[in-house]
Amino acid sequence: MRIPICTRGLDDNICMSGSRVSLVIAETALELVPDELSRHSSVRNHARRLQKKSSEILLDRSFHHSAMISGKIKLAWKRGRPDIAHFALLEALSTPLYLEGMLDVYIHTIDDKVIKISPDVKVPKSYFRFEGIIMKLFKEKTIKNNEGNKTLLELCDNTTFEYLINNIIESDNVVGLTSVGARSTADYVAFRNLIVKKNVKCAFIVGGFPKGHFSECTSELFSCSYSIERFALEAHVVIARILYECEKILLHANNGSRGI
Amino acid sequence: MRIPICTRGLDDNICMSGSRVSLVIAETALELVPDELSRHSSVRNHARRLQKKSSEILLDRSFHHSAMISGKIKLAWKRGRPDIAHFALLEALSTPLYLEGMLDVYIHTIDDKVIKISPDVKVPKSYFRFEGIIMKLFKEKTIKNNEGNKTLLELCDNTTFEYLINNIIESDNVVGLTSVGARSTADYVAFRNLIVKKNVKCAFIVGGFPKGHFSECTSELFSCSYSIERFALEAHVVIARILYECEKILLHANNGSRGI
Repeated sequence: MRIPICTRGLDDNICMSGSRVSLVIAETALELVPDELSRHSSVRNHARRLQKKSSEILLDRSFHHSAMISGKIKLAWKRGRPDIAHFALLEALSTPLYLEGMLDVYIHTIDDKVIKISPDVKVPKSYFRFEGIIMKLFKEKTIKNNEGNKTLLELCDNTTFEYLINNIIESDNVVGLTSVGARSTADYVAFRNLIVKKNVKCAFIVGGFPKGHFSECTSELFSCSYSIERFALEAHVVIARILYECEKILLHANNGSRGI
Repeated sequence: MRIPICTRGLDDNICMSGSRVSLVIAETALELVPDELSRHSSVRNHARRLQKKSSEILLDRSFHHSAMISGKIKLAWKRGRPDIAHFALLEALSTPLYLEGMLDVYIHTIDDKVIKISPDVKVPKSYFRFEGIIMKLFKEKTIKNNEGNKTLLELCDNTTFEYLINNIIESDNVVGLTSVGARSTADYVAFRNLIVKKNVKCAFIVGGFPKGHFSECTSELFSCSYSIERFALEAHVVIARILYECEKILLHANNGSRGI
């Protein structure tokens, strides 16, 4: 019994775009508590429990809701959700595509910082441990392995989405995944951008924020954009599906068809 | 441009097994701190921080590692990972298959309790909130909606995996997903068990523990078992892939092919 995969119609004129893809979790709601909120009682109480200064802890709506609705920060509805980054990152870094070294992962934050994820990084599943690592990263700018000879995570300050795309990833095919994109499916998006488009460096962009859409600064850089479901999906679901479909093409391309 | 899906070869003799499937996250490392460990200092300190009794908090290796390696509990390596249940559940409950009412989800725990998940349940992404709900569930046996007229989560004590399969789900096709199963792919597993097998009530079983394999009590109930990758995958990755492939069949079966 064999199950077909989407290799039908391939010929010399359409070939795979390369052996690597990039994933950017963009405008991610991951940041330190901004100065405007650092004296609010909900923030100070939470910081005390974590035995940190207010300025060293992550903005988190689960604990700082009352501070966030005080009107002191812009775009409050799009911020303070470090759990989204945690899930999205775990989803991406658990895929065979990443584990086989064929995926580069970046987090771009809502306040224009970029976190570069090295190959072979394991993010802790425990949120408590993840939070500790990210707070350390924001303070020290790098997280190294236990031996201190390899950088696992690197934080680049003042790095816009545009700079990330043009100067770090150097992508020439920026694929936005958004509920306002062209209606499609994950398998088609992977097929179209990894097989039909020749020799392009492809970056898939997924939003790391709880609601709303990408800002214009981000979406104007998209080469194309797709919606892979009839309604908005969680970031981690979009990541799971698009990477799985990329993997079918990039990791299993030579099989023709798969199954037992 | 159209991408084929696996409807090829369908005829009157092979049809879909029905409009619903079940997912069981089995032998899940989710339990209250057992009596043997409740007096250990790591447990008591953690309980104090959560303002709970030791017997009311979840066993969690992130906090209770030193208690767990004391040798006082059996199978310690397979226990104390509530984060696995959190991720696995979030993965399943975020899928269109669940959101469209075509998926029943159950957690079977390592100490033989079963959590029934109603339709339309949203599990909080924040681990802190998830932990609070599960501790309340273990204490009160049900979690209701805000209006108190609908049960969202229900805990059944002393419920074995066998009882769940035979008397609650009443499944006649129990599909184990395990790294020691027959080598296959998620699309083949969905195809084989939802299309080729006629009129059967299908339950997919994924392990909710950090390492090792299903116990014999569980695996002897499998009708068949598959490994969908060359190496062991995280539970949430297996769930994401198998449900996505089921969804392609169950939600998009009438489309013939998909794409734009």
